[in-house]
Amino acid sequence: MAAKRIPTIVKKIIAEATDVHAKIRRKSKPQMKLPIRSLSNVKYRPKTGYFQLLGKNKVRTLTVGTVKTFAQTLKMLAMSKDLVETGRHSTKREAYYQAYNWAEASFVAQEESDTVMDDVEAMLGVNREQMNFRADEHGGEVAGELIVIDRDRRTGKPIEIDCTAFGSGAYSVPTVVEELKFKTSAKFILAVETKGMFERLVEEDFYDKYHCILVSMGGVPSRACRRFIRRLADDKKLPVYVFTDGDPYGYFNIYRTLKVGSGNAAHLNEYLCVPQARFLGVSPQDIIDYDLPTHPLKDVDIKRANDAMKNDPFIRHYKVWQKAIEKMLKMGVRVEQQALAKHGLEFVATKYLPEKLKQINSFLP
Amino acid sequence: MAAKRIPTIVKKIIAEATDVHAKIRRKSKPQMKLPIRSLSNVKYRPKTGYFQLLGKNKVRTLTVGTVKTFAQTLKMLAMSKDLVETGRHSTKREAYYQAYNWAEASFVAQEESDTVMDDVEAMLGVNREQMNFRADEHGGEVAGELIVIDRDRRTGKPIEIDCTAFGSGAYSVPTVVEELKFKTSAKFILAVETKGMFERLVEEDFYDKYHCILVSMGGVPSRACRRFIRRLADDKKLPVYVFTDGDPYGYFNIYRTLKVGSGNAAHLNEYLCVPQARFLGVSPQDIIDYDLPTHPLKDVDIKRANDAMKNDPFIRHYKVWQKAIEKMLKMGVRVEQQALAKHGLEFVATKYLPEKLKQINSFLP
Repeated sequence: MAAKRIPTIVKKIIAEATDVHAKIRRKSKPQMKLPIRSLSNVKYRPKTGYFQLLGKNKVRTLTVGTVKTFAQTLKMLAMSKDLVETGRHSTKREAYYQAYNWAEASFVAQEESDTVMDDVEAMLGVNREQMNFRADEHGGEVAGELIVIDRDRRTGKPIEIDCTAFGSGAYSVPTVVEELKFKTSAKFILAVETKGMFERLVEEDFYDKYHCILVSMGGVPSRACRRFIRRLADDKKLPVYVFTDGDPYGYFNIYRTLKVGSGNAAHLNEYLCVPQARFLGVSPQDIIDYDLPTHPLKDVDIKRANDAMKNDPFIRHYKVWQKAIEKMLKMGVRVEQQALAKHGLEFVATKYLPEKLKQINSFLP
Repeated sequence: MAAKRIPTIVKKIIAEATDVHAKIRRKSKPQMKLPIRSLSNVKYRPKTGYFQLLGKNKVRTLTVGTVKTFAQTLKMLAMSKDLVETGRHSTKREAYYQAYNWAEASFVAQEESDTVMDDVEAMLGVNREQMNFRADEHGGEVAGELIVIDRDRRTGKPIEIDCTAFGSGAYSVPTVVEELKFKTSAKFILAVETKGMFERLVEEDFYDKYHCILVSMGGVPSRACRRFIRRLADDKKLPVYVFTDGDPYGYFNIYRTLKVGSGNAAHLNEYLCVPQARFLGVSPQDIIDYDLPTHPLKDVDIKRANDAMKNDPFIRHYKVWQKAIEKMLKMGVRVEQQALAKHGLEFVATKYLPEKLKQINSFLP
């Protein structure tokens, strides 16, 4: 067999371990350096387009008090190396149970092993999927003008998955998307909040008529879904338009998370967020323009909106977002994307989206 | 164009409407008959294998007091007829918004329109998916030795979807599966609780080695997921084995719902439940046999288990289930399916499942 290329992640792990080993041989205290993971160590950088770490680190030195965590961190690195080398992936839950055999270094609860995994992730400056760890979550669904190139595990050969060939079904995105490649002639990606709206657009042949790729996020997009959109958009230089309910949950929990990431996982935003995303709708202005039925804002909606106006670095950066939120608060209502069905089931596909797509410059940033 | 076959559901709707129309012409009061939807009108029938209606009906007569609901029910029937004839589907949310144009018959809230949809469903004795209504939910994922035959909406031609050809991804089941057809040489269906375990088995080439179809339910299976498994199992005469966590949630909320359905939707169990399902594991006995790490039962687990022993007609019917639950309560612990990873990531695929599959007769009913 030809000499195999050592994956970057394995090189990083070996470098960390070699450093610790060398220090021990020199009888000095080994150290591990980890970025501090909190909002205090985060800044919104409009240029790169997401929350970024400010660079404050904590240093973990091997002492009597840290010996268990230190050992766990090294064991977790070893587990990751093993996974990458065997081509396997492990969920967080599985990692926790595998660690049952670490004797004194085993974990008391899964929260403990999750924290160590987060530490390792931040330490190496990668997302855990690159270390062959994965979350146990739904990765989103895809239909449209896209061919995903994956690998057949049995033969090792590339396989092409044609996302126009699923009929009324869809391609379900795996939890780890690092190795996927893409072929497409689509003009944009349309990320949709609900499965119901996704299936509406599939049923209306929307992706055919407008040459796009539809992604169903199923509420707040999972890591895999965000990473999938990001990799696809980067690789194929595609714009990303986001279509959610017109309420604080759609604006902040879904859109904001997709675009710039979140504060407590800032070390990952580099990989997981989609800075090229723009907000298509449903906007507060759409309620007026399209005469849409609404529901009154709930107390929690109002609180969430006021919080964002005050504290969210992303909203505070964009005047147009502040104006949109102010308009929503003044109108006192929220709107669901399905409200467009008032004008007929096909309205969203034949009128609303086509009209919006003619004025992309008016999308919220 | 050749004369089109009138779909059964449209015939049923026309029959209902004709009846109402004739009564009005005769100047007598039109009536609609609906089965009572509650546990008091339900029985567990081991022979058919699911909760069934006892046959008590309520009769809705057109009066001043019922005129609005009466009108809404007829309009809902008309909407369904229109959907079936145009080949469109409508979510419950979309149906609610379409009804904004029903003037005095429009709904005040979505709960109202959902209730009328449930009424119509029970009245016609069909599941709402047959009326081209659909829920806005995730339909489950599939990988393995199965070809799904769907229809290309643009050309109307059948398309074959090969569920072995998605690499690390999967086929995402649409919310309406009524028209799907299947080709398979698989020996059984394995329905799995978590996406993580599903991906583990895909990664271990399990479906290849054991000639099966893997379905990820993602927790409590959605209507679409249940209906998909049921139609596939009926059509291809396949046994269905279920693999969940070993806790009351896995036993009752997931397995029991999949197999016999639930009480408050008894008029649907005929279509949605999977009577051929059998419980593979993880069972309380497996904890001992495979030396698995556990967690203590939570109070809510204990309450749920005691409730089921006392009130659940399904559990009360099966001594072996009662014994299993008693064993769990006595041991005081629950177990996650990922606990098998203690013996190595591949253990579930190379040892646990193969051993269990050799003694299918010992599966819980």
